Amino acid sequence: MKPVEGRRRVVIEEVQPQVDCGRYPAKRILGDIVTVSAAVFGDGHDHVAGRMLYRHSGEDAWRSVPLEPLTNDLWSASFTVDKLGDWLYTIEAWVDHFDTWCADLRKRIGAQTASSTSHLSSELQDIPLALRSGALLLNRTAQRAKGSDSKLLADAAANLDRLAESNAVTYKFPFSEEIITLAAQYPDLTLATRYHQELALWVDRERARYSTWYELFPRSASPDPTRHGTFADVRELLPLISAMGFDVLYLPPIHPIGNAYRKGRNNSVASTEDDPGSPWAIGSKEGGHKSILAQLGTLRQFDALVAATHHHGMELALDIAFQCSPDHPWVTEHPDWFVIRPDGSIQYAENPPKKYQDIYPLNFESTDWRGLWEALRDVFVYWIRRNVRIFRVDNPHTKALPFWGWCIAEIHKKYPDVIFLAEAFTRPHVMYSLAKAGFTQSYTYFTWRNTKDELQEYFEEISKPPVSDFFHPNLWPNTPDILHATLQKGGRPAFMQRLILAATLGANYGIYGPAFELCENIPIRQGSEEYLDSEKYEVRHWDRSASQSLAPLVTQINQIRRNNPALQSDGSIHFHPVDNPNIICYSKSSGSNRILVAVNLDPTQEQAGWIELDLKQLAVPHNENFEIEDLLTGIHYHWHYRSNYVALRPDVMPAHIFRLIRPSSGEITLDPNATGPATEIARSEDSE
Amino acid sequence: MKPVEGRRRVVIEEVQPQVDCGRYPAKRILGDIVTVSAAVFGDGHDHVAGRMLYRHSGEDAWRSVPLEPLTNDLWSASFTVDKLGDWLYTIEAWVDHFDTWCADLRKRIGAQTASSTSHLSSELQDIPLALRSGALLLNRTAQRAKGSDSKLLADAAANLDRLAESNAVTYKFPFSEEIITLAAQYPDLTLATRYHQELALWVDRERARYSTWYELFPRSASPDPTRHGTFADVRELLPLISAMGFDVLYLPPIHPIGNAYRKGRNNSVASTEDDPGSPWAIGSKEGGHKSILAQLGTLRQFDALVAATHHHGMELALDIAFQCSPDHPWVTEHPDWFVIRPDGSIQYAENPPKKYQDIYPLNFESTDWRGLWEALRDVFVYWIRRNVRIFRVDNPHTKALPFWGWCIAEIHKKYPDVIFLAEAFTRPHVMYSLAKAGFTQSYTYFTWRNTKDELQEYFEEISKPPVSDFFHPNLWPNTPDILHATLQKGGRPAFMQRLILAATLGANYGIYGPAFELCENIPIRQGSEEYLDSEKYEVRHWDRSASQSLAPLVTQINQIRRNNPALQSDGSIHFHPVDNPNIICYSKSSGSNRILVAVNLDPTQEQAGWIELDLKQLAVPHNENFEIEDLLTGIHYHWHYRSNYVALRPDVMPAHIFRLIRPSSGEITLDPNATGPATEIARSEDSE
Repeated sequence: MKPVEGRRRVVIEEVQPQVDCGRYPAKRILGDIVTVSAAVFGDGHDHVAGRMLYRHSGEDAWRSVPLEPLTNDLWSASFTVDKLGDWLYTIEAWVDHFDTWCADLRKRIGAQTASSTSHLSSELQDIPLALRSGALLLNRTAQRAKGSDSKLLADAAANLDRLAESNAVTYKFPFSEEIITLAAQYPDLTLATRYHQELALWVDRERARYSTWYELFPRSASPDPTRHGTFADVRELLPLISAMGFDVLYLPPIHPIGNAYRKGRNNSVASTEDDPGSPWAIGSKEGGHKSILAQLGTLRQFDALVAATHHHGMELALDIAFQCSPDHPWVTEHPDWFVIRPDGSIQYAENPPKKYQDIYPLNFESTDWRGLWEALRDVFVYWIRRNVRIFRVDNPHTKALPFWGWCIAEIHKKYPDVIFLAEAFTRPHVMYSLAKAGFTQSYTYFTWRNTKDELQEYFEEISKPPVSDFFHPNLWPNTPDILHATLQKGGRPAFMQRLILAATLGANYGIYGPAFELCENIPIRQGSEEYLDSEKYEVRHWDRSASQSLAPLVTQINQIRRNNPALQSDGSIHFHPVDNPNIICYSKSSGSNRILVAVNLDPTQEQAGWIELDLKQLAVPHNENFEIEDLLTGIHYHWHYRSNYVALRPDVMPAHIFRLIRPSSGEITLDPNATGPATEIARSEDSE
Repeated sequence: MKPVEGRRRVVIEEVQPQVDCGRYPAKRILGDIVTVSAAVFGDGHDHVAGRMLYRHSGEDAWRSVPLEPLTNDLWSASFTVDKLGDWLYTIEAWVDHFDTWCADLRKRIGAQTASSTSHLSSELQDIPLALRSGALLLNRTAQRAKGSDSKLLADAAANLDRLAESNAVTYKFPFSEEIITLAAQYPDLTLATRYHQELALWVDRERARYSTWYELFPRSASPDPTRHGTFADVRELLPLISAMGFDVLYLPPIHPIGNAYRKGRNNSVASTEDDPGSPWAIGSKEGGHKSILAQLGTLRQFDALVAATHHHGMELALDIAFQCSPDHPWVTEHPDWFVIRPDGSIQYAENPPKKYQDIYPLNFESTDWRGLWEALRDVFVYWIRRNVRIFRVDNPHTKALPFWGWCIAEIHKKYPDVIFLAEAFTRPHVMYSLAKAGFTQSYTYFTWRNTKDELQEYFEEISKPPVSDFFHPNLWPNTPDILHATLQKGGRPAFMQRLILAATLGANYGIYGPAFELCENIPIRQGSEEYLDSEKYEVRHWDRSASQSLAPLVTQINQIRRNNPALQSDGSIHFHPVDNPNIICYSKSSGSNRILVAVNLDPTQEQAGWIELDLKQLAVPHNENFEIEDLLTGIHYHWHYRSNYVALRPDVMPAHIFRLIRPSSGEITLDPNATGPATEIARSEDSE
């Protein structure tokens, strides 16, 4: 069957960004310049032109910007996203007869000039006829144009006709560039091709891409070791957490905890009256996901904590875990939201032989799935109305993916500033699918990527398109569930290494404190990633003033992140070869801000090696030496363009975080204010 | 907005093959096993299952085949395409509750067995309850099953219930694998996810992928140098062409040639009465694209030539060039199909300063584009009805791409065996777009890819997905328009090299003869790729018995192609490193047929080097030597698994075409019937 209009001769393909053929929106951040590219071409030698159409979903009319040619039939155009939420974009392109004609005329004039000097006929190139063709095109353009533009174009057309009639031998192009530019503003769109899809773009606020999280258990926030912590205690800690440079304070679930099958210390099945139970065993007769555990405080105290967090330049993130203790009100109100066993009992969580009788999973195949979905959405909405805008969602990969697609879209419609962090540690397809379904940020495999090769391969995958178009990694060196062997065995140097890696590889990162900064590294048993005496099952008391605390380093690293835009996004990451497998080296840049990080991955001893820099990635001119500053020590170095030596002692400082200053003047400048470590480790030497 | 059914928990992504997100069909060959893969996964730990649905477009009902798991949530299934034309396929997948239950029960039994031996409660794993859940699932499956299957499943369910009631301590899985297999045949599809697209597949006959073309000008087919060749003369040449091993005989346009602005010898603007003109200046008062140039013969003689070509195991391919001489009947019948200039004249082809006044291009922006499209389609249909099934289309990239999409689909609907070769030498996007629009085969950049790096990079691109899913390359070392500098300068050795490269890199290849096999290599002028005294503008007489003729080598190469399925497709091509940039080495395989080719790319002197074989690509066991036969000489060699030496003299034989025989017995076997070149060139040595 013929198309309705068979004369649309331009083909549009390969429109980027595009996530899964446009099935999911690409993601960008407020203020980003979004560059859209496409392959645009037609048959034959006619010139093509095109434009990108874009609009915020709240706008009715498209805005447009002309496509600029790249190479090989690729074109691009950019726009700035100045509003949160859903945007749409597409491409329109057409054969540009006037531009084709201009190029043709230039060739004719060139050929005629050449033939005229060799005394051949000046009629050779049919210039008068060509001028009349041009006049026709310009007159049609004038009809599409408005006001004075129309007159200018019509005048240019009339001039072409006069020239044609005069039969004058013309070697000069007959009008100015302004006329060409003007004509391009009024293209003939009757035979334009519109790309067959309108592609969606989701725009988040900046914290989606750049955030610094601190997780703590309010139950352990009390300065009095004998007392359960409260929201008020957490408020007292805010100045300290804020001073460390965090901007998200994340609390495990704050809801009433079930009594049935409550877990005791160290996850024992037997508990005593004193055991507080796991915050993830949600719900009791006091309430469920919209209620607050009485020991933590009241709703009013919660509101005060939210406000105080904002006052300290931070946001509060809540943990939303969609599962229920047997005591949760939903169990009696909506037994159909759970799986019922043949004996009429409700199925608890189990992975034979393990039983989690304190937890009832929700049944996403419930016949009342609509009611369930709405109830779950309303949990978010409830806390959003209490001014929470960040949620860390527990095990989202055990809830139906279509639910997340709907739930997050519903919430984002009204509250586009809400950030959802997916706590999914599962297979890659499922991880990515959650991000496509709408999760803003995601936990990653970072915790289990420890060697140079592992880190490099993983971050090259997740920091570049297609993954980076929909996935914002959030790196955690530890969580209440994961104390990795690297930290168990590597001790304080390993904590320093993993902190620096997380904070510089990822624009989003977080730590579970104070376990992290106090270098807590004892597992419940050999070979386990569970903490001994985990706060998940008991109240702990922490000595934040302990001498081994990494709080000063955390503070310094977070300050470096804040001062250097290069560390506030991930797309620019580039790995540079080092001749020692124990040293990883990478750079990030943003505008003129260029950061180069080298980390010794071995917690046991000094490692040294030569870094071969990819200067193009650092915008350093070829063959020029340059000056860098180690932001951890303040020491300046004069580096060679080819190859540079580093030696890193894990017990002192396992990393350099260099800022590139400028192509070097040739002498080493020392910052007089620098206060480096006692031992001066890094050296700069020429490789030749 | 909620989906209609929110309980479809399985996600289906990354369905392959898929060309441009399913916008165009992938292509396969009759008899191919089509393997479709997809990422299929759900939330949580439930098992998923799925099936591929597929059907020929002429069938109403889907056929289906179960998905088999690969790794990492990827699944695949295969079907054989047993019919030409359009096929459709898609994926359906669901949570497999019964399979999940089986795995769960096995874990329970395992755990209970372990606990029983340690004298813990045998009730620990709730097996009776689990059995009752299983009985419910099996009973529902029995309701979906038919006849005796239904009874078997119901019986198994009843047995589970009995076991559950007996409260027996069961350590054995309660039914056979047959029941599991049977249950899998009756999945519960009520909550199945169907992939959102039905993807199209186009199935061609084998000649689309494997063909051997010989182009000749019928005008020069006469044995009498004073006479214009005829179809009858071409018939006389068929035994010779067929004996060389060609299966497609391709003729330049056979239509009446225009008189207006007829070109003379060597493309001169002045012609005499004797000049036959260019066959591409189509149309005169004798007719246009459906007529035959009287000097070639009658329609009846054409029909006889078609029949005789088939009789010799070949097919005739016609050249369809959609352009007109000023004398073409369409010019007066349909002036609106051309571009009219302001003075009322028709625009001839030009690229200032060049003018092609003997050619009027068609105007695909004609208001009567529908009439034009139909007329052009009818040209193909006319020749199809005269039993032509292969068309080489001249400059398809200067006709509107939507036209090709429509025209080829229209023709393929009724004649799915028609093969279209696109003679487009243009930018990559346009080349590929023609293939996506429906062209079966395409000319390539092979002619201009001469160094090892150029060849390797290009063939890695076009022989692998995504390109190979829609693009069948057809390699030509020469055409009437292209006598590459390599041939001009390299002489006979270069012709041998380029012949072997074309015939072994590409399952489709062709030569323009007899210019090729006679090593005609004089350009019209230095720096030009045009032949001197080109047949495009004059009748030539060829001495096919000349001593320099490569006909024997052409015959041998084509025989090797015919005997070795490995050379009849391109997807398996793999390049092996050689330590000499003048030697290229690659392998192809099909089933147990494995071919290894090494070509000296230097026409001036012997080149030697060590080949490092990628044994996995050749299915040679690691650490085993093996035996190979040079199909050009018949000589057998005993090769080392690691590295092997070759030395190739371009004047004698610039290539080896090895067939791998078997892992070697350790001794070199010489074929007693082998008649190698006088100089024994190739050596086999161990590298250590």
